[in-house]
Amino acid sequence: MTKPFPRSPQMSGWEAPQRFEGDLYDLEIEGEVPADLNGSFFRVAPDPQYPPRMGDDIFINGDGSVSAFRIEDGHIDFKTRYVQTPRYLREREARESLFGLYRNPYTNDPSVAGLSNTTGNTNVVMHNGLLWALKEDSLPIAMDPLTLETIGQSDFAGQVRSQTFTAHPKFDPGTGDMYCFGYEAGGLASSDIAYYVIDPSGKVKHEAWFTMPYPGMVHDMAITENYVLFPVAPFTSDLERMKAGGLHWQWEPGLDVVYGVIPRDGGAEDVRWFRGPNAFVGHTLNAFEDRGKIYYDVPLTNDNVFGFFPDAKGRSPLPSELKSSVMRVEIDPRRADLRAQGEVLVDAPAEFPAVDDRYLATAYRHVFLMGFGGAMDLASVPAQPYNMMFNAFLHVDAHNGAVRTTWAPGAAATVQEPVFVPRGPGAPEGDGYLLALVNRLDEVRSDLVILDAEHIDAGPIATARLPFRMKNALHGSWAAAEEFNRPS
Amino acid sequence: MTKPFPRSPQMSGWEAPQRFEGDLYDLEIEGEVPADLNGSFFRVAPDPQYPPRMGDDIFINGDGSVSAFRIEDGHIDFKTRYVQTPRYLREREARESLFGLYRNPYTNDPSVAGLSNTTGNTNVVMHNGLLWALKEDSLPIAMDPLTLETIGQSDFAGQVRSQTFTAHPKFDPGTGDMYCFGYEAGGLASSDIAYYVIDPSGKVKHEAWFTMPYPGMVHDMAITENYVLFPVAPFTSDLERMKAGGLHWQWEPGLDVVYGVIPRDGGAEDVRWFRGPNAFVGHTLNAFEDRGKIYYDVPLTNDNVFGFFPDAKGRSPLPSELKSSVMRVEIDPRRADLRAQGEVLVDAPAEFPAVDDRYLATAYRHVFLMGFGGAMDLASVPAQPYNMMFNAFLHVDAHNGAVRTTWAPGAAATVQEPVFVPRGPGAPEGDGYLLALVNRLDEVRSDLVILDAEHIDAGPIATARLPFRMKNALHGSWAAAEEFNRPS
Repeated sequence: MTKPFPRSPQMSGWEAPQRFEGDLYDLEIEGEVPADLNGSFFRVAPDPQYPPRMGDDIFINGDGSVSAFRIEDGHIDFKTRYVQTPRYLREREARESLFGLYRNPYTNDPSVAGLSNTTGNTNVVMHNGLLWALKEDSLPIAMDPLTLETIGQSDFAGQVRSQTFTAHPKFDPGTGDMYCFGYEAGGLASSDIAYYVIDPSGKVKHEAWFTMPYPGMVHDMAITENYVLFPVAPFTSDLERMKAGGLHWQWEPGLDVVYGVIPRDGGAEDVRWFRGPNAFVGHTLNAFEDRGKIYYDVPLTNDNVFGFFPDAKGRSPLPSELKSSVMRVEIDPRRADLRAQGEVLVDAPAEFPAVDDRYLATAYRHVFLMGFGGAMDLASVPAQPYNMMFNAFLHVDAHNGAVRTTWAPGAAATVQEPVFVPRGPGAPEGDGYLLALVNRLDEVRSDLVILDAEHIDAGPIATARLPFRMKNALHGSWAAAEEFNRPS
Repeated sequence: MTKPFPRSPQMSGWEAPQRFEGDLYDLEIEGEVPADLNGSFFRVAPDPQYPPRMGDDIFINGDGSVSAFRIEDGHIDFKTRYVQTPRYLREREARESLFGLYRNPYTNDPSVAGLSNTTGNTNVVMHNGLLWALKEDSLPIAMDPLTLETIGQSDFAGQVRSQTFTAHPKFDPGTGDMYCFGYEAGGLASSDIAYYVIDPSGKVKHEAWFTMPYPGMVHDMAITENYVLFPVAPFTSDLERMKAGGLHWQWEPGLDVVYGVIPRDGGAEDVRWFRGPNAFVGHTLNAFEDRGKIYYDVPLTNDNVFGFFPDAKGRSPLPSELKSSVMRVEIDPRRADLRAQGEVLVDAPAEFPAVDDRYLATAYRHVFLMGFGGAMDLASVPAQPYNMMFNAFLHVDAHNGAVRTTWAPGAAATVQEPVFVPRGPGAPEGDGYLLALVNRLDEVRSDLVILDAEHIDAGPIATARLPFRMKNALHGSWAAAEEFNRPS
C-alpha cells in the first residue's frame, strides 16, 4: 500500500505527485492551431512514483514522467507515460521507494546495489528516430516517440563507455550530429568528462576523455562553429561524504566557475580551462564565435540557487539574496590569459531558454525565456523551487539584450519552459511558434499555449485546455513529424 | 480540432469534461485498506467526448466513462476508460458530435441514421464474467472487467429482442439471475415493456412483453420474493414531438405514478398497474413482501426533479419548490383496489441508495444514501444538477426510518454514490464497508473513501487520494474478485 506522500512544499499543492499515465485525444482548443505545425512537443517532469525513502525529497529526484503533445492537421493529442527506468520497474515491483538521496547510492536499499540510479527526469530529445529520456547521472533511456513506450537504457551499442550522459546535448544544425558528454564519467564523484560526437545514425564519430579542475557540476554545455564548451558550476561531489550518508553536492563559495573549451575534434591535450567569478551557472541560451572569440550566453546568479545543496557550513542564501542576470561570457581561446569576461545581456532573472535550433552554435538573434511579469503577486504563489515561479515569457534580442516583448496570462498563472518551432524550413530566424504549458493556479489545471513567436505579447494563437494540472516539467523539446520516421 | 465546450453549468467547474483515459497504479492511501477487500469498485460518469451538437447539453447525455478501483491486498489501482459505443467510435472518427438531443435521433446527423444512440453512461454491473455498461435507451455494452476494454453491444446472442435495456437490473441473491427489462422496447416512444430473467451464464430463462398505461419513464425496477415491480414516472415520450426537434420527455403534472406488478414468472396477462399520486420517482432502495403485501422503498419528490424536461407549458419548478422524502410504498397485489399507499420512511431528501445486495428482495434493515449534512454551505457549491449537491452519507434503519449516522467531510466537499461491500460471505447484514468518491471542491480533486458501514460517522478507515477531480458519476457497483473468473 502506498503511504501518503509528505505534504512538503515540493510534494504538495501544484507540485503534488500526479502519478498517472494516460491519453487525451483531440484536446479542446480555443483559437486555431496553425496547420503548418506537424510534430510533437515533448516534456518530462519529475513525478515520484512512491513516497521518498528518506521521508522527504527534492523535486529533481522524482521519477521521469514524459508527456507528448502530438500536433497534426490542427489537432492535438496528449499522452503521458513514465520513463520505465530500471529503478522505476524495481520500485513498482516492491511498491515502495528503494532509492534514497539524490545521486547517493549509499542511501539506497541494499537490494538495488549496482542498479542504475537514473530517473530519466531532466530532458527528452529526439535522436536517431528515438526519444531519449535524459538525466545526467546515468546513460539515457530510449523511448518510442509515438507510443512513449520505454525501450531501454542504452550505451549506444557499446560505443559509449561513460557511465553518465548529459541531459543537455546539442545538435549541430548542419549535420544533425549530437554533441554530448558525461561527467563523473569514470565513476561516482570523479572529475572525468567523457566527450562524444554521435552522428544521426547513432555512430560515435569522436570521443575524448579529460579531467575537470575540481569534481564540479556540469549541467549543460554549448557548441560554437569550432569549439565545445563545458561550464562547471562550483559544487563539488565527494565520495566519503556520500558514504557517510551525506549529499552528493556541496556548494563551494570559494571556487571559480570554470569553462572547459575544446575544439570540436580535440583530444584531452587540447582542453583549456577558463575561469570566471564564483556564480551559479544556469542553462545555455546559445554560443557563437565572432572574430576568433567565443561568446557564451547563459544566466548567472550571484549565489547558490540550489539551496537544498548547501555549503560546507550548511549555509544557503535566502531567495531575497539571489541576484540573477543573463550574461554574455567572453572567452578568447587564442589567448594565454584564462580569464572569462562577463557582461550583462539581460539585467533580470530569466531561465529555461529556447532558441531557433537552426541557429545553434552561430550568431543568432532571438531567444525566448521564462521570466517575471508585473501581473503576478508572487506572495500568492505556493512555495515552490525558485525556478518554478516564473510567470511570463520573454523574447530577448540577443544582439543588444533588449527584452522586446512579454506575455503574462494573469495574476494566477505561472509558466513552464517554452520550445520554439520554426514556421517552416525556409522561415527566417525567430519566425514561428512558441509552445509552452501555462499553470492555471486558479483552476488547478494546465493549458498548452501556442504563441506567435514574434508577437508573444498578442496572447495565444491557440490554447489547448487540459482538464488537470501538469506538474512543472524540467525540460523538453519539439520534434518535427519527419523525425519519427528516421531509420533507427 | 475540438472547439471549446460551452462553459454552461453542466459543463464547467467540477462538471467540466475530463475526457482522459489512463491508469494510476497503487494509489496513495491514508489509513489502512481492509485486507478482506478483494474486488473492484466500478462507476460510470457521463463525460462528453466532443462539444454538444446542439450548442449545450444536459449531463445525462455525455459519453460513458468507466472507472475501476481494483482493490487487493491493501492496494488500490485506478483505471479509467471510455465505453467505446458505436456512437463514441463514430464521433471520434468524425472528431465532432454527430448525435443531438438526448434520445432524439431526429436531431442526429443524417450520417448516423440507424446507429445506436447509447452512451452507456448510467450504470456498470457485472454479469456472466463481463462488465456491462448500461443506458436505458439501448442494449448494453460488454466490457472486460480487468482491462476496461470494450467488447461490444450485445443482444445476448439474439435472445433479447427488446431494443432497450434498463440501467438498473436486479440480481436475485440466491440464484444470481438478472431481472431486467427494456421500456420503449418495441420502438422509440412506444409503451412496450419487455421483461427478462437472464441466468448467470447469460441464458434467458423468462420473457414477457406488456404495455404501460402511458409511454412513461421507467428508470428503475424492484424485485421481491414473488414479484417484479416497474415504477413508471409521469413523463411521456412522443414521436411527433421528437420529429419536430423537441425533447424526448415531457413532464406530466396530471398523471399518476403507476407501478406495474408482475409475478416473477408471469406473463402479460398477469400484469397489474397500481396508482399513486403524481410524483418524481427516484432510485429503488429495496422491496420486500410482508404478509402478502409488497413494500417498495423509494425516494419520491412532489414535482419534477428533471427541470430540463419541462411540462407542456414549458414550466419547471424552482429547486426551492421541490420537496423530497424517502417513501415506503405499500401495494397489496391480492386486492382489486389498485391504489398504492405511501408513507414517509425518511423525511429528508436522500438519493443514490446502496444496500447489502445479499438482502435484495427481502426484509432488510440497512440502507445507505447520499443526503445533506449541516456542515456544507450550499451557496458555496457551484450550480449543479439537483442530485449532485449531496454532501453527506446517510445510514438509514429501514425498520423504522431512523437516520442513524451521517458523515460529511467538510464545508468544501460533496459526495458521490456509495456502494456497500459485506465484510465477508458470512457477515451479518450491514457488516462491511461503504465505498464512495468524495469531491474535494477545495482542492479540485477526488478521494475514494472506505468507511466502516456500521460506523460511517467515525470517518474513513482509508482514503485513497486521486490527483485530479472525477466528475460526478451516475451509478456503479462492487464486484468481488471471484466474479472476474466466471466462465463467460
